Amino acid sequence: MRYSLLSGGKRLRSILCLAACEAVGGDVAAALPFAAAIEMLHAYSLIHDDLPAMDNDAVRRGMATNHIVFGEGCAILAGDALLTEAFTLMARRTDTVSHRRVVSIIQKLGEAAGSLGMVGGQFADLQAQGAEEVSPKQLLSIHTRKTGALIRASVQIGGIVGQANPKTLVRLGVYGEKIGLAFQIADDILNIEGDAKKTGKAVGSDSTHQKATYPGIYGGVAQAKRDALRLVDDALEAVKPLGLPADRLGQIAHYMIKRQK
Amino acid sequence: MRYSLLSGGKRLRSILCLAACEAVGGDVAAALPFAAAIEMLHAYSLIHDDLPAMDNDAVRRGMATNHIVFGEGCAILAGDALLTEAFTLMARRTDTVSHRRVVSIIQKLGEAAGSLGMVGGQFADLQAQGAEEVSPKQLLSIHTRKTGALIRASVQIGGIVGQANPKTLVRLGVYGEKIGLAFQIADDILNIEGDAKKTGKAVGSDSTHQKATYPGIYGGVAQAKRDALRLVDDALEAVKPLGLPADRLGQIAHYMIKRQK
Repeated sequence: MRYSLLSGGKRLRSILCLAACEAVGGDVAAALPFAAAIEMLHAYSLIHDDLPAMDNDAVRRGMATNHIVFGEGCAILAGDALLTEAFTLMARRTDTVSHRRVVSIIQKLGEAAGSLGMVGGQFADLQAQGAEEVSPKQLLSIHTRKTGALIRASVQIGGIVGQANPKTLVRLGVYGEKIGLAFQIADDILNIEGDAKKTGKAVGSDSTHQKATYPGIYGGVAQAKRDALRLVDDALEAVKPLGLPADRLGQIAHYMIKRQK
Repeated sequence: MRYSLLSGGKRLRSILCLAACEAVGGDVAAALPFAAAIEMLHAYSLIHDDLPAMDNDAVRRGMATNHIVFGEGCAILAGDALLTEAFTLMARRTDTVSHRRVVSIIQKLGEAAGSLGMVGGQFADLQAQGAEEVSPKQLLSIHTRKTGALIRASVQIGGIVGQANPKTLVRLGVYGEKIGLAFQIADDILNIEGDAKKTGKAVGSDSTHQKATYPGIYGGVAQAKRDALRLVDDALEAVKPLGLPADRLGQIAHYMIKRQK
């Protein structure tokens, strides 16, 4: 559990949670346990995705993947325990966040992570590997669920901790949705033209796994870059009414497409 | 997810949850979603336990195990999604149970299921397989965590829904702990002298997997049966002060050691 959770990474989802809380004028310290729970949930998903029965990846964040180091049985259990601990940790933090909001956050995270969200996206991804043809609609549906749902939930959870009103939560949701897709497009591009030393992952692995990618389906790398830029603009537009406190959300949106890892 | 969740089984944990709610004079209908969540969590643990990297079992409840039917990748994801849905479902049921109690239930179930509970027990079990020697203390620790923790939590969650006072929750905890161990002893005995047609599992599989069992370590089957009987007596003693409403808890305790599957 420690090996994968504490192996670095961009901490994007937890940072988004904190930045969203800040953007709505909330107490950022109160959001920390929830940000940590989100990272636990993310770490579990990476451990299970890397398993031989899934994407069968040996390298992640520049390190050997969990099952390579500890064996498959232990890796499955480490993922299970991280997922469980994510929910348990959130249920423990009721000193600064009301019970009502904790329940609402658990529901939001659970729905984003479950069979209609992240796990559903991973299953569709698994089924699409090596498939004759993946339609643009299918690919978008995979991306939206597999990575988009958790990114969107991370932003909204920060908003809920910060006691955002329903209208602002919708704005944060749009922001999260747009940068979530921009993130995945950037990920697909990095897998084609990135530097393995920086990404910590094998470049070209999508092609090896015959995975459908955004540039492959939506008119090449240059077009994909234009689409990602437009998504970032849309994201910025959504949180503009929040003013200066949302400045960091704007910076993160820009980072989405500039990042090299 | 449906294949494993709806494949029958004894529904012991959910029945315990409902019976405990009844025992403290609570609204049994309000406990139903929580009982369902507990079954989801139990189903996930069976799917993952049966995987090739774990116990590598091909038959469960008289049917082919999940990974045999759907493949390993799908089985891992079905378990992940059932675990996630268990927490999500509980977080949705705040119409009849207060937010405060929902949070407390999620914490209780998470702690019983996580690295200090069920997953920790499964990991210790995995490590102990084929080990030179398993001490009585180690075996008890595996049983307590792997099956005992969830059974105990199921009883207490029914009590929390039923608004039991702290003293009664402790009594329910003792009851759950005692029948949890009695259940596991009976399981080990059934694996030795049970009827595969009734248990739906391969008889003798513990011996094949070189698994340490209670009868193997604590003086044989006859002694194990005596120990289980004493545990059932202790369990009955613990809930005796609750009177007639706890009658069904008493019946379930007796069933623990009489069951043939």
